[in-house]
Amino acid sequence: MIIKSIEEADAISYGEGVSKRVVIGQKEGAPNFVMRVFDVAPGKTSPYHTHDWEHEVLILNGKAVIVSHEGVETPARPMDAIFIPPNEKHCLKNVGEKDLRFVCLVPLKGEDTE
Amino acid sequence: MIIKSIEEADAISYGEGVSKRVVIGQKEGAPNFVMRVFDVAPGKTSPYHTHDWEHEVLILNGKAVIVSHEGVETPARPMDAIFIPPNEKHCLKNVGEKDLRFVCLVPLKGEDTE
Repeated sequence: MIIKSIEEADAISYGEGVSKRVVIGQKEGAPNFVMRVFDVAPGKTSPYHTHDWEHEVLILNGKAVIVSHEGVETPARPMDAIFIPPNEKHCLKNVGEKDLRFVCLVPLKGEDTE
Repeated sequence: MIIKSIEEADAISYGEGVSKRVVIGQKEGAPNFVMRVFDVAPGKTSPYHTHDWEHEVLILNGKAVIVSHEGVETPARPMDAIFIPPNEKHCLKNVGEKDLRFVCLVPLKGEDTE
């Protein structure tokens, strides 16, 4: 068993104003899926991209807008969950005044190749 | 894409003082793993059990103690992540005065059979 604060995982730059921490991944022995935590600075956004694996997201702090495949923008707040199926274009924008933090889980292949 | 508050998922009793919400599961189209949110009342505990799949947990609110396979008790607080490998006995106790809330992800077979 591993118990650790998410702050103990290294924060890696993931584009301008975005950092990623791999909290539970292959290094920790995860056999199927990976827990990552992202911090997005005010006014910044995660990449608007697509890939052939799903995201399971939970907003932890801050104010987000989720941009869908069709470009539709939907607000999301802490304790909102987002399921993004494979091959759906998406991004998360920080539209608040504080950092946006969310946890985002992907199958192993999603973390290997991102 | 699905965006919803975790409160929109039905809370199912999961033993005395414990409720479970399946937030992103097979019904939502999850192909590999399932997001569940648990609420544990003060003084209560999730079952002390074992199974052949992993847990990836993030504490959201409250004060927890994690009991390991060997019976070792480790405190955990919000933004602590816990990786419980397959076949390791475990439970989460609420040792605080408010509800303990955590998100716990398992592979599909873990939600089918729990």
